[in-house]
Amino acid sequence: MTERLTGKRIAFLFTTGVEQVELTTPRKALEDAGATVDMVSIQSGPVLMFDGVEHGDTVNAELSVDSVDAAEYDALVLPGGVVNADKLRTDRRSVEFVRTFADRGSPIGAICHAPWVLIEAGVVADRPMTSWPSLRTDLQNAGARWRDESVVVDRGLVTSRGPKDLDAFCAKLIEEAAEGKHEPATSGPPLS
Amino acid sequence: MTERLTGKRIAFLFTTGVEQVELTTPRKALEDAGATVDMVSIQSGPVLMFDGVEHGDTVNAELSVDSVDAAEYDALVLPGGVVNADKLRTDRRSVEFVRTFADRGSPIGAICHAPWVLIEAGVVADRPMTSWPSLRTDLQNAGARWRDESVVVDRGLVTSRGPKDLDAFCAKLIEEAAEGKHEPATSGPPLS
Repeated sequence: MTERLTGKRIAFLFTTGVEQVELTTPRKALEDAGATVDMVSIQSGPVLMFDGVEHGDTVNAELSVDSVDAAEYDALVLPGGVVNADKLRTDRRSVEFVRTFADRGSPIGAICHAPWVLIEAGVVADRPMTSWPSLRTDLQNAGARWRDESVVVDRGLVTSRGPKDLDAFCAKLIEEAAEGKHEPATSGPPLS
Repeated sequence: MTERLTGKRIAFLFTTGVEQVELTTPRKALEDAGATVDMVSIQSGPVLMFDGVEHGDTVNAELSVDSVDAAEYDALVLPGGVVNADKLRTDRRSVEFVRTFADRGSPIGAICHAPWVLIEAGVVADRPMTSWPSLRTDLQNAGARWRDESVVVDRGLVTSRGPKDLDAFCAKLIEEAAEGKHEPATSGPPLS
């Protein structure tokens, strides 16, 4: 696997309450595979991570989402955490950033509660996906075809249920990021 | 207002991560109005409340949801908190308890993130409602008619957006609880 992602630039997008292990584990896996990884949040600066309902460490977001161009990245990773995803979906610039990756067919990894942000971006209709179990109804109501599997891959979109699926998630993420762009899924009308 | 709810028994249903002020403020308002209020959770015992992303105090849940009969209550209150509502919606017995109130037309107050539990119970279609802004898309996808108002009342269902709306929420909750049962809204098919 080593060096499979040399030359690839990958963005992580998250905010307060991001599930620590869902950020640190994929970050290490992608860096070990040779990728350059940028930490992006609503604002730059220290971000408090969570370990379940407990506070975790802080991670430094080097870049704010309104300072970055999605076109500069080969892939996007959305770690989970219920507080993180709930907050991120209300940030218009973050939702637009995510939508740009989906519209271009660039690989996206979304784990646990992160698919809420994909619902907000309007990019889940008719797509096979998984998530933390609490999101099943919301994803199905948004038109996704929800599955109870450790990892689901659909044209560059890699989704997993939670921390226990991280090995499978990282492996597929590296595979999709190495492969590059897919034919974009048809998405809904532009955000009004 | 005093004593308007004498003889009424009201259940609060919540779990870990419940937004402290959304539990304590309505509880005091209903007790001040003469109601008997029971604290119900997935399991009985101490429950950690949140104040935003910070840990709050603990509250004692006297009763577990599988030990109570919805028929013994005149109304139900669902405080918010993102962690609370996300967890509660995955507990089948809690979702069924909520659904029983909706099916009987008994008053329900749901604030902030609590309407996720109403989505899970399948009781929001065609109903005017509000919530924390992050839930708007999920509620609309579930068929609700979402409004950006401090409090929305629809045949006994009282919803509000968050802590800043607590005065309006409590006033309408007391009014609806005093009024008693409404004609039930048509709900979807039974949970499979």
